[in-house]
Amino acid sequence: MAASPYEQLEQEFRRLHAFRGALSLLRWDAAVMMPRGSADVRGEQLAALETEHHALLTTPKVARLLERAEAGASQLEDWPLANLHEMRRQRDHAIATPPSLIARLAKATARAEVYWVEAKKANDFKLLAPHLEEVVHLVRDKAALLGQARGLAPYDALVDGFMPGISTADIDTIFKALSRKLPGLINEAIEVQAAHAPTPLNGKFTVARQRSLSVDVLKALGFPFDRGRLDESEHPFTEGVPGDIRVTTRFDLNDPFSGLLGAVHETGHAMYDLGLPLKWRDQPVGRDRGLALEESQSLLFEMNLCRSRSFVKYLRPLLEKYLQVSGPEWEEANLYRHLIRVRRSTIRMDADELTYPVHIMLRYELEKKILEGSLPVADLPEAWNANLEQRLNIRPTNDIDGCLQDIHWAVGHFGYFPSYVLGAVIAGQLNEAMRAARPQLDEEIAAGQFGGVMDWLRDNVHGVGARLPVQELMKQATGKPLTAAAYLRYLEAKYLEIP
Amino acid sequence: MAASPYEQLEQEFRRLHAFRGALSLLRWDAAVMMPRGSADVRGEQLAALETEHHALLTTPKVARLLERAEAGASQLEDWPLANLHEMRRQRDHAIATPPSLIARLAKATARAEVYWVEAKKANDFKLLAPHLEEVVHLVRDKAALLGQARGLAPYDALVDGFMPGISTADIDTIFKALSRKLPGLINEAIEVQAAHAPTPLNGKFTVARQRSLSVDVLKALGFPFDRGRLDESEHPFTEGVPGDIRVTTRFDLNDPFSGLLGAVHETGHAMYDLGLPLKWRDQPVGRDRGLALEESQSLLFEMNLCRSRSFVKYLRPLLEKYLQVSGPEWEEANLYRHLIRVRRSTIRMDADELTYPVHIMLRYELEKKILEGSLPVADLPEAWNANLEQRLNIRPTNDIDGCLQDIHWAVGHFGYFPSYVLGAVIAGQLNEAMRAARPQLDEEIAAGQFGGVMDWLRDNVHGVGARLPVQELMKQATGKPLTAAAYLRYLEAKYLEIP
Repeated sequence: MAASPYEQLEQEFRRLHAFRGALSLLRWDAAVMMPRGSADVRGEQLAALETEHHALLTTPKVARLLERAEAGASQLEDWPLANLHEMRRQRDHAIATPPSLIARLAKATARAEVYWVEAKKANDFKLLAPHLEEVVHLVRDKAALLGQARGLAPYDALVDGFMPGISTADIDTIFKALSRKLPGLINEAIEVQAAHAPTPLNGKFTVARQRSLSVDVLKALGFPFDRGRLDESEHPFTEGVPGDIRVTTRFDLNDPFSGLLGAVHETGHAMYDLGLPLKWRDQPVGRDRGLALEESQSLLFEMNLCRSRSFVKYLRPLLEKYLQVSGPEWEEANLYRHLIRVRRSTIRMDADELTYPVHIMLRYELEKKILEGSLPVADLPEAWNANLEQRLNIRPTNDIDGCLQDIHWAVGHFGYFPSYVLGAVIAGQLNEAMRAARPQLDEEIAAGQFGGVMDWLRDNVHGVGARLPVQELMKQATGKPLTAAAYLRYLEAKYLEIP
Repeated sequence: MAASPYEQLEQEFRRLHAFRGALSLLRWDAAVMMPRGSADVRGEQLAALETEHHALLTTPKVARLLERAEAGASQLEDWPLANLHEMRRQRDHAIATPPSLIARLAKATARAEVYWVEAKKANDFKLLAPHLEEVVHLVRDKAALLGQARGLAPYDALVDGFMPGISTADIDTIFKALSRKLPGLINEAIEVQAAHAPTPLNGKFTVARQRSLSVDVLKALGFPFDRGRLDESEHPFTEGVPGDIRVTTRFDLNDPFSGLLGAVHETGHAMYDLGLPLKWRDQPVGRDRGLALEESQSLLFEMNLCRSRSFVKYLRPLLEKYLQVSGPEWEEANLYRHLIRVRRSTIRMDADELTYPVHIMLRYELEKKILEGSLPVADLPEAWNANLEQRLNIRPTNDIDGCLQDIHWAVGHFGYFPSYVLGAVIAGQLNEAMRAARPQLDEEIAAGQFGGVMDWLRDNVHGVGARLPVQELMKQATGKPLTAAAYLRYLEAKYLEIP
């Protein structure tokens, strides 16, 4: 019997999946293994494969098959129907932006990235401004076209590309709740902690020892080293496909935690990818449910599970074993104080769990204004500094510590930042539901047993793949729509407790 | 102005080149970095990219462009004309074998590979025989189709795929000359060496130390570590593209030479690839001139340059420095004896420079008979053992040491083996010409200065790319057509000298 239009589509997307896997490996290698001088060659390979991926996704054949499959959609079961929906989404996204605009954007962002580096060196935003202006102009065009194709407002269309099904209205509601509570909470937490400052952890911790420690912890979390790797790179990241997943971290010789928690954070991503529905592994519906869900898993691992008293119980003997440390400063109470330290910083990357959302809300507010044209690019430094001062009572004294600190806008990523906070909010709500379902969770973590956590996540989040919109997934997993309430309860309990 | 048909072809092949680079990285990673359990995923990625590469090469568009460009070929200069010729060759090769035959061959060889492993375990060729039979049957079909397309006899068409421009007649002439001389030469060499057996080199040489030694030597040879890597793998190999070249080796803790010389051998390949004409890097004419030329470069490096008295002069202080060895057995004379030791073995992979061609000539004779049908697959073990006994006066006592030792035929590689010896013969003739042009060569090698060698090779071999047929390249580089004469002179001088 001839394959149905839907089955033919599955075949096409299987091939696209293999392309995505190859692209992912090329990126991993570029960051972890590639010799310094080979960037030009790799750039050509990535461009060729991406172009071909785009061409395969946007052929008239795929368009025809989509139409025919959609005409017979009433015959399809749940999963294939959701798969067809995701195929349509991917194809519409790909076709919405003409290749000429993609090419111009690629050139403009490549140039802006160079000038971002120069501007940082010179501590002068003005060097970047005209190039960022050009990027903004092109991103605006892209957002308008995407919006038309998807029936969304321009900025919503960008957000939808990163977080399918999340709207500006969703973000606004959540950010409003956070803006009301966070400033007071930050003040109180800093006051509570001032009376219980942690004793410093001195020492030099070799990469080899930190690596062994991380491998042990990752194994306990369930990371499969026969189908994955842990390596080092400039910034931690996760690449690969569910059958070959690769996480990286960066070890700091003076800090026993940053390398380990970077690896744990990435393992949250990896476990999500590994838990995606096996049967749909090579299909659009078998993919993760966008950046906010991805970030929720890495944050759930790092923040909710591991920056906790019970994790410290599990970790302490491992620190003694692998780092060969001892002394009163390595007692549980002091270690925990290090893990939850709250400090105001002008730099997002240095921010702790509690102040981090503030940095994101600033960026969200400003990037919307830049795109709609109500904030001229040239006025960004002043707007940035004033906004941070108002939100966090701390003011950058130069551009490096202000609007030059992130590369995202220069490379054209608008609508991306909010996913960081949405991820934290989702993690907070999942965390509450998971703990209600597993009252023994803290004892399990203290014993280094993460199987129960993984089972719950697999059943309620990972195994759903992209079958449901985020909001629907959250209702099924937690019994409630997504709000900031659980996340705020979690932050209050954690940061107002006397340490 | 619109691009000419030839210019459009360049554009198409530029894309194919990027695909080849990506495929090469996927293979490198699979052998060096990939987690054990991820082979299935990688297999899907490789298949998807290979299929797409084949599809892009065989589109009607490329066929039309080739015809139009060939109609205007009289307008083209030397290099573009040769490039057009190579484009045609690649496309005709790709189109000659229908995808259905390729697919059947892929399945048959995958199965035969499994049974080859089983047969080796059980030391019983009969387990492999029926599966090898099937592979032979399909390779015969492929050879016939390729032969038709290229106007060549079937076996010649297979050889042409690995060594463009080399015919069975060329191979026969050369192998005849070798068969006449080698047996006597082997006997004499063993006799000469018997009176001067080397003193054993005892010790454990850590991977870290051997690696540092190899890196130092590779740097002297000119290997660019900012555009290449040295790693370890089960078997040494070279992958990558000229802008990102990766060699591997395998270190033996008890042998100070095998890891180093494996790396040097692969560096011969790498330096060839790196020396290919930069301007044509992403075009067919900018590629290497086939397997025989490739092998000539690795053998020239390993055998002619480095298994030499002058290289030992350079190497000895490095052995002292990196392996921290000393004593009379580490004197130059004794080290050199180790490097040129001749011993009869039933195993090709264990063979030395002098006996190696014998193993290849056996395979060449038998694979032609198998393909033409005059030697039934079932009779292979006896034919193999008898042939080796006649050629080398040594007889395998079981299948593992006989016809089961190589994987090549099981995976469908017929017409491949002769390139190993052709490579050695080419290296011998290049070596003679190079030494005539650079009388100071041995002093340079002893001083660890390889710049002169590289200049000569770049001018006469590497920089030619695929612009000339092998025979023509040899005439330009050495002033003579390719024969076995220089190679035999080299072997006699090296192996009949009192050590």
